[in-house]
Amino acid sequence: MNASPTPIRPAPGAPPDALRRHVAALLAQYRPGFALPGPFFSDETLYAAELEYIFGRHWLFVASEPEIPEGGDYRTYQIGPWPIFVLRRDDGSLAAFHNTCRHRGSRILQQPSGIAGATLQCPYHRWTYDLDGRVVGCGDMDESPAAQRPLKPVHVRALAGLIFVCLADEPPDDFEDMARRMQPYLAPHGIAHAKIARQVDIIEHGNWKITIENNRECFHCAGHPELLCSLFHFFGKIDVERMSAAERANYQRYQQACATQQGIWNGARLPWQRIEELHGRATAFRTERLVLDGAGESMTPDTRVASRRLLGALTEPRLGTLHFHTQPNAWYHFLSDHALTFATIPLERGRTLVRSTWLVHADAVEGRDYDLDNLTKVWNATNAQDAAFVEETQRGVLSPAYEPGPIAANEYMVQLFHTWYDERLRAGLAL
Amino acid sequence: MNASPTPIRPAPGAPPDALRRHVAALLAQYRPGFALPGPFFSDETLYAAELEYIFGRHWLFVASEPEIPEGGDYRTYQIGPWPIFVLRRDDGSLAAFHNTCRHRGSRILQQPSGIAGATLQCPYHRWTYDLDGRVVGCGDMDESPAAQRPLKPVHVRALAGLIFVCLADEPPDDFEDMARRMQPYLAPHGIAHAKIARQVDIIEHGNWKITIENNRECFHCAGHPELLCSLFHFFGKIDVERMSAAERANYQRYQQACATQQGIWNGARLPWQRIEELHGRATAFRTERLVLDGAGESMTPDTRVASRRLLGALTEPRLGTLHFHTQPNAWYHFLSDHALTFATIPLERGRTLVRSTWLVHADAVEGRDYDLDNLTKVWNATNAQDAAFVEETQRGVLSPAYEPGPIAANEYMVQLFHTWYDERLRAGLAL
Amino acid sequence: MNASPTPIRPAPGAPPDALRRHVAALLAQYRPGFALPGPFFSDETLYAAELEYIFGRHWLFVASEPEIPEGGDYRTYQIGPWPIFVLRRDDGSLAAFHNTCRHRGSRILQQPSGIAGATLQCPYHRWTYDLDGRVVGCGDMDESPAAQRPLKPVHVRALAGLIFVCLADEPPDDFEDMARRMQPYLAPHGIAHAKIARQVDIIEHGNWKITIENNRECFHCAGHPELLCSLFHFFGKIDVERMSAAERANYQRYQQACATQQGIWNGARLPWQRIEELHGRATAFRTERLVLDGAGESMTPDTRVASRRLLGALTEPRLGTLHFHTQPNAWYHFLSDHALTFATIPLERGRTLVRSTWLVHADAVEGRDYDLDNLTKVWNATNAQDAAFVEETQRGVLSPAYEPGPIAANEYMVQLFHTWYDERLRAGLAL
Repeated sequence: MNASPTPIRPAPGAPPDALRRHVAALLAQYRPGFALPGPFFSDETLYAAELEYIFGRHWLFVASEPEIPEGGDYRTYQIGPWPIFVLRRDDGSLAAFHNTCRHRGSRILQQPSGIAGATLQCPYHRWTYDLDGRVVGCGDMDESPAAQRPLKPVHVRALAGLIFVCLADEPPDDFEDMARRMQPYLAPHGIAHAKIARQVDIIEHGNWKITIENNRECFHCAGHPELLCSLFHFFGKIDVERMSAAERANYQRYQQACATQQGIWNGARLPWQRIEELHGRATAFRTERLVLDGAGESMTPDTRVASRRLLGALTEPRLGTLHFHTQPNAWYHFLSDHALTFATIPLERGRTLVRSTWLVHADAVEGRDYDLDNLTKVWNATNAQDAAFVEETQRGVLSPAYEPGPIAANEYMVQLFHTWYDERLRAGLAL
Repeated sequence: MNASPTPIRPAPGAPPDALRRHVAALLAQYRPGFALPGPFFSDETLYAAELEYIFGRHWLFVASEPEIPEGGDYRTYQIGPWPIFVLRRDDGSLAAFHNTCRHRGSRILQQPSGIAGATLQCPYHRWTYDLDGRVVGCGDMDESPAAQRPLKPVHVRALAGLIFVCLADEPPDDFEDMARRMQPYLAPHGIAHAKIARQVDIIEHGNWKITIENNRECFHCAGHPELLCSLFHFFGKIDVERMSAAERANYQRYQQACATQQGIWNGARLPWQRIEELHGRATAFRTERLVLDGAGESMTPDTRVASRRLLGALTEPRLGTLHFHTQPNAWYHFLSDHALTFATIPLERGRTLVRSTWLVHADAVEGRDYDLDNLTKVWNATNAQDAAFVEETQRGVLSPAYEPGPIAANEYMVQLFHTWYDERLRAGLAL
Repeated sequence: MNASPTPIRPAPGAPPDALRRHVAALLAQYRPGFALPGPFFSDETLYAAELEYIFGRHWLFVASEPEIPEGGDYRTYQIGPWPIFVLRRDDGSLAAFHNTCRHRGSRILQQPSGIAGATLQCPYHRWTYDLDGRVVGCGDMDESPAAQRPLKPVHVRALAGLIFVCLADEPPDDFEDMARRMQPYLAPHGIAHAKIARQVDIIEHGNWKITIENNRECFHCAGHPELLCSLFHFFGKIDVERMSAAERANYQRYQQACATQQGIWNGARLPWQRIEELHGRATAFRTERLVLDGAGESMTPDTRVASRRLLGALTEPRLGTLHFHTQPNAWYHFLSDHALTFATIPLERGRTLVRSTWLVHADAVEGRDYDLDNLTKVWNATNAQDAAFVEETQRGVLSPAYEPGPIAANEYMVQLFHTWYDERLRAGLAL
């Protein structure tokens, strides 16, 4: 019999001293400008602290509004140990709750998505809740104790069609600031009234931070031939002196495309200036409208729009891509003809879910306005390549021989992610 | 290198202080009248304590006698970390041993069941034991050290055809009391001379206590349409005032059936009064003869007997069901025409084996006397429904947002199970 | 949130006190002359200590030279948490490195085997290394920090065609002594210029020590009918008095074969005397030329050579088998016509990889000189039998009822393995 010291879960807000010391000792190993130390990808206690203080306390992107389009529609999610669901009420508003019955704890909604009626009933003992979470019936049972036990709410917010949830009692209050500043960038793409063309879940065999790091730099983009048809990979400090002749020609084409594209954006009154607040705040984010190569229209093999029906009220196909990151778990591309959202959720220390969703205009018709294979080809290929990079990195960093190497200038967003991660753990654990 | 504090296994009977403190802290979280707190379903140390002090120290139902019918027949079991086997000697007596060779530890009997000869031979190095566990040969090896090393015995008892084992050095001494009082109820069903019509193993993806809790109440029986063809679900405190008209009519039918059925039981000299000693003793149990709905004969879709050949010397088909529970791991139904045993064994914190066995008279012939599909339909369906309830409850109670809710009056046996569980851990750990 | 005490990995060479105490307490449970106590096969901390101090600090056999025949060829291995690779340079020399990129840690070589060019390039961000491990390119990145970061080397040595690696900074210095003494035994079999006829990986569901113990005794050889066609199982103390008549006849045949065979070995100038240094040194080993039964030529069903083309420059088919053990992870048979190597690598506490390789002369042609099925039949069958023995022993020793039993005289090499294991853990942990 092993009496492993599994302490009782402490009251929220009061991190136990042992945990604080443990995480502090790990953070002390991290050296800014270098990759994260090996235990960051394998330590079970650190992973538990991340679930609690990163995923349990920040705004997480989970879905776009077209995934929960009508009153009564719901989707369920598992975020670390928390099963939750998001539903749309008949008045069009969104609500989110912990998916745990207040009687004996069963999950109430058991499918990935579905349609609720006027009430939600736990199938186990038929405790019944209205769409505000109040108990409206509990079988043959005396209802007075039940009346005190509404479903526990989860904070939910929509930003221009993107749905975020926060499991904390008191969510970070800087979401409003991000929403206010991002609204003008996002609104023209009309996501709230788009439709889902495709959704693909893949499981990457690596720690969630490797998945995010992989997304935060294009140093590795030579490994993405399909993506490079449209994406210029000039990020971070550009050193023209070090470029080959071919690379320099590429860079000149990029600069010319930037000039042309900025004229188009200005003409269409689309904001395009970079906002980069990837640390120093809880709800950290980054946006930038990026020019694309070739025809500059979309992230497709031929760089042309995949959907003839453009998003929202857009009429100009050549808009490049509006790139958007939100810490800790998502990234997005908004093009003239379609949008892409990527939500990541840790499953275990070394396994991460990546959910990719392709959205087109609600009126676009597959086969007539877009070809699904052409729409999804670039990012399906890119996702598969990234999954391999993540898995191989996970295997390598578990080696005791692994030593964190230097972060390159064109990986600077990886370092900003580390800074934010360090800040948020220190804030959560009062270090 | 992680030096996780895995202490050396202490001498039996002397629970280590760290374990005592750990379990005591968890038990202090439990509030009578409410569901168990979340860590009861996930804590690895508590699970280890349960294996040692619940499963390692109490009488466990493992099989009915027809599963080991002839001299030389054996069955092997894995109970937590303990591989054991039960065999029948040529004189008809039962014996049970740890299935661990006294030489280098290999399992000796490796199949789920089989036929031993006059001796048992470990296939690895051919150490050989007689059916009393004595070493009668050890290959080319000098036998003097081996002679001191008989197989370690496991306590085994039969009660009216039901086989129980106990891994403790000194088993609870109240088994005799249960046996003496249950014998008159069970004996008429002639289990020792029945035969196995079917045995089905399913794995429920939940903690063993959720499996047992699920069995100990019928509040959830609306989720068992096949079972409700025959089962009245009136358990616990009945509140006629709160019933709907339909429910009240149902209750009246139930009361009339009770009166009729008690007359039949009395005429057949079958004891039917409830015995409910579900806590306050180590070998806790409950029995009650229950009336059934419809024809009242059996737990079949049409409530008629499934086997024309009744059990034992019974001649009356309408006997309802003799319900029997034994803590910690089993329940049973004894009908006029067949019997059902259900043995549960924890496999991991969140995985539980449920073995269901259908018994009919030894002379009943499939196809002539009974149809196997008709015999097994109700409980195969019910088991599948319960497995889903258990799995969804396990997922829900692992949520940090889970709070134990109130136990309803018609779930009172769940609370009695909690009381017994609390008592037994405290007794085992001297808390 | 569980703050399990996962301490930071200490500096190599300074085992943490908690780990030292933990391992010391376990070693104190071991009683020489008896099997290992149960926790030796299940304790997670001991397993981690074994990876560090046994597998991380000793010479491990990983391959024979024909597996990496040409300049540029490489093979990758996963040894506990360490991914490594071994390659052959164009000058024919061998090199080995940690397979972990010095930038962000990805595995560099991702296939089990392959052909490198003049450089090795990590596919993630294209850091590039020459075959001495020096960074010769790191994408667009400033190269000055990279230049300080060559691939970390792994020690590699070849002995008569057998490749050994050592992960320690300072490998045991007694490899040379073993190599010098073994060279005359091994060289005539010409392994460096043989070819791989077959390689089979199996996973045994038991601790690596059970796999090794299984190999170190023939007490269990009655369970290997195919092997016993050729193998006499007289190991350890032979007690003719205790033999049956049949066994005694067998033993006489064995003694006659020994006399004949020694004459042949002497005539061929092949050293055959036993060397047994299985403990008292880091690089412990054992060798002995063994006579074989029947025709005495090979470990085949008919005891005749499987390959008409003999190994090296050998011309005499009847050479018995040169048996060779190296602690901690390998054993080998060298016959006149083929050789067998067996490399074991722990995968988890209870799972072990066993890689079996059959080698024949480089000029032997399948179908003409040898039949693959005839060549591999005996050891494929023997491996499958041993895998079952290992799995059943693992299941048995995990029982709390398991008590280590006495080691028999003909298992004396099991005890010598225990002695070495105890010595090496004590040396590594300074106990």
